[in-house]
Amino acid sequence: MVDTVKIGIVGLGTVGAGVARLLLEHDDRTARRAGRRLVLEQVVVRDLAKPRDVRLPPGMISTDLKRITGNAEITTVAHLVGGIEPARTIMLQLLASGKDVVTANKALLAEHGPELFDAARRADRSIAFEAAVAGGIPIIANINQCLAANQILSIHGILNGTCNFILTEMEDRGASYAAALAEAQRRGYAEADPTMDVDGTDTVQKLAILSQLAFGFRPQWRDIPCSGIDQIDATDLRYARELGYRIRLLAVAQLGEADLDLHVSPTLVHIRTPLAEVREAYNAITLTGDAVGQLFFHGLGAGQMPTASAVVADLIDTVVARAAITFRTLRLWSEEPSQARLADPAQSNGCYYLRFNVADRPGVLAEIAGELGRHQISIASVIQHTQDGTDGTVPLVIMTHVATEGAMRAAFDAIDRMKHVRAPSSRMRVYG
Amino acid sequence: MVDTVKIGIVGLGTVGAGVARLLLEHDDRTARRAGRRLVLEQVVVRDLAKPRDVRLPPGMISTDLKRITGNAEITTVAHLVGGIEPARTIMLQLLASGKDVVTANKALLAEHGPELFDAARRADRSIAFEAAVAGGIPIIANINQCLAANQILSIHGILNGTCNFILTEMEDRGASYAAALAEAQRRGYAEADPTMDVDGTDTVQKLAILSQLAFGFRPQWRDIPCSGIDQIDATDLRYARELGYRIRLLAVAQLGEADLDLHVSPTLVHIRTPLAEVREAYNAITLTGDAVGQLFFHGLGAGQMPTASAVVADLIDTVVARAAITFRTLRLWSEEPSQARLADPAQSNGCYYLRFNVADRPGVLAEIAGELGRHQISIASVIQHTQDGTDGTVPLVIMTHVATEGAMRAAFDAIDRMKHVRAPSSRMRVYG
Repeated sequence: MVDTVKIGIVGLGTVGAGVARLLLEHDDRTARRAGRRLVLEQVVVRDLAKPRDVRLPPGMISTDLKRITGNAEITTVAHLVGGIEPARTIMLQLLASGKDVVTANKALLAEHGPELFDAARRADRSIAFEAAVAGGIPIIANINQCLAANQILSIHGILNGTCNFILTEMEDRGASYAAALAEAQRRGYAEADPTMDVDGTDTVQKLAILSQLAFGFRPQWRDIPCSGIDQIDATDLRYARELGYRIRLLAVAQLGEADLDLHVSPTLVHIRTPLAEVREAYNAITLTGDAVGQLFFHGLGAGQMPTASAVVADLIDTVVARAAITFRTLRLWSEEPSQARLADPAQSNGCYYLRFNVADRPGVLAEIAGELGRHQISIASVIQHTQDGTDGTVPLVIMTHVATEGAMRAAFDAIDRMKHVRAPSSRMRVYG
Repeated sequence: MVDTVKIGIVGLGTVGAGVARLLLEHDDRTARRAGRRLVLEQVVVRDLAKPRDVRLPPGMISTDLKRITGNAEITTVAHLVGGIEPARTIMLQLLASGKDVVTANKALLAEHGPELFDAARRADRSIAFEAAVAGGIPIIANINQCLAANQILSIHGILNGTCNFILTEMEDRGASYAAALAEAQRRGYAEADPTMDVDGTDTVQKLAILSQLAFGFRPQWRDIPCSGIDQIDATDLRYARELGYRIRLLAVAQLGEADLDLHVSPTLVHIRTPLAEVREAYNAITLTGDAVGQLFFHGLGAGQMPTASAVVADLIDTVVARAAITFRTLRLWSEEPSQARLADPAQSNGCYYLRFNVADRPGVLAEIAGELGRHQISIASVIQHTQDGTDGTVPLVIMTHVATEGAMRAAFDAIDRMKHVRAPSSRMRVYG
């Protein structure tokens, strides 16, 4: 005789339907892994009329959250409502009614983590959120648990499948940014309004969550320097390839002696690194720990079943009570002093790729090189092709040695204002 | 005031010393991750005089196991003794004295898993063994816990760093097998007696453990078809490269409709797959789950600190009691019926690489192709270069379409016996 545990789901979108299917169609599997049967008892949605990607037994679905909060037999709830409100209120109601919660909503955690985690602690409940970062890649459990003996030194991640799909499309097919975005929307990778993906918000919110787990650091995600891919120019993808790089939207966390350098930006990633090989809607993370060395994880970062896989793993973790232990011992978003502080973005170090459209005349390269030199930035390589440009300019591409972001920005802005330089200029970080 | 938990270590070789260092030098870290301080209380070794890679406080080390088994305050012990005996007896004594055990000894688990796990269940203790497979890559926790919602469909792993180092050396420097092995020994990757590594035993024992976790299957490791890299010929590495492959020692588990195909063998791995990019002493695993899709893990599979990282993660898991939950719910090496049976090796499917040294005369290719045809094996491509061989033979390289291992073996043996074919011939599986 196997025990049973009753499960609720709030929100039956793509991921919710995937979770329902795993619970309904594979309860033998969860029984084997959890030592008890996870029985889907109740699903609550906003709109009953909406078509669903799963067939539920009659009576299981309603629009009334009290069918879950008022049912003491339901102990654990998959909270799969996107956005901030009513997602926040629903989660608070679930916790207040004594439910353990599993969620995939990274925006909600990045925005209201402290309030929600404090509410869970007061109610002696747990919140699990493996699905909130990198979808099917179990990066949360790996950092929280498997790498617990390490001081994590750095994280480099491709955390947004939409952006990576767009960049791969532009790279492989020479598509424009607009065409690649349209293709991503056609395939269901990008939302009708893709702003949060392409401007880097989604990535930076995930980085904020990882930083908390890996470094005991609680940044406001809005404080993390972030640029997206929405200004990417196909010209830079071509030069990157010529130089042996691909462009990826990289989330970076790098532990320094006194502080933590965090940023999200389109980055030239060297073709010899595994991150350069990440294609289409895949995600990947390179993580360095002081004991384990470098680990690399690659998998589907979004999509119905990969995300549902992470949610159901959390449901199992919760019903067997491992999640409660992890939640208690890690004291996430707690009031304890942060173990790291955000580095001054101007002091962030790295190599850079620069591209300027310059007038094809003597002295221009000397003028630009002089400006870089004044900011102590030394040049690693230069490409300048002859070009039959119609506007009398030629592209000048410069790879620099290590420089600070502050010096780089000052030099770049000064060069960008030069008489013989025509907008738009490009500046990107280089990795690997 | 942080609680403390007292820890013992048996065996202070390379990994044991690494574990001791993490516990002694980073107790703040374990305290943060475990919510209590892990205090190293006692180390037991066989030979006190042996030089150690760690400095222990006076009185902490002895040769008397009773200093651990007789100390009720020590609740959790890192069992880091290699080989089968006395490792087995020591583990039984630790369990009988009420200790939870963490081990890195895959040979011991592969050989005596049922006895040891039953002993742990009788004593109401747990055994954790993340370090037993793939060193620093947390593949055990990922399968047991993070991917619990999935039916794992296949595993392809590079699980032995010594073999991978030797293959990379041969590939990159054109070294002979003997020279590459000597270099591996010089660098400390290979033991003085490397037999268990190079003949595939170490890999097949790890595959047996993973199969149990992923498929609920308990094979005797000796029943799994296995060949090592000790017969590898540099000629095949050159042809592999010409065909767009690298040779890797691959552990494969593939779930069929009715059974599970397991094998370990040197394999041509297509250059476009991440497994082909695994170099030197690194390990990697490609794993496919029915919900999560394909995941790829890459990291250091051996070495002092990567392995110690896995052991200490298990120690933390054990003292916070997550390990006990996992151990209880998964019922590993239990008496429950196995959920899969081993496929008939002769029915195992795949593409093959073949190389024969053939007499340079008319009709030989027709004869060989005819023999393959008689076994229903169709040819995908052929390479035959002119060669100024001194023995009058030329190498004939054939890539086949999918064939069964049984048909392939029969055809290969028949061709190998032909008058115009001179030993040694090569036959390897192809992946990707």
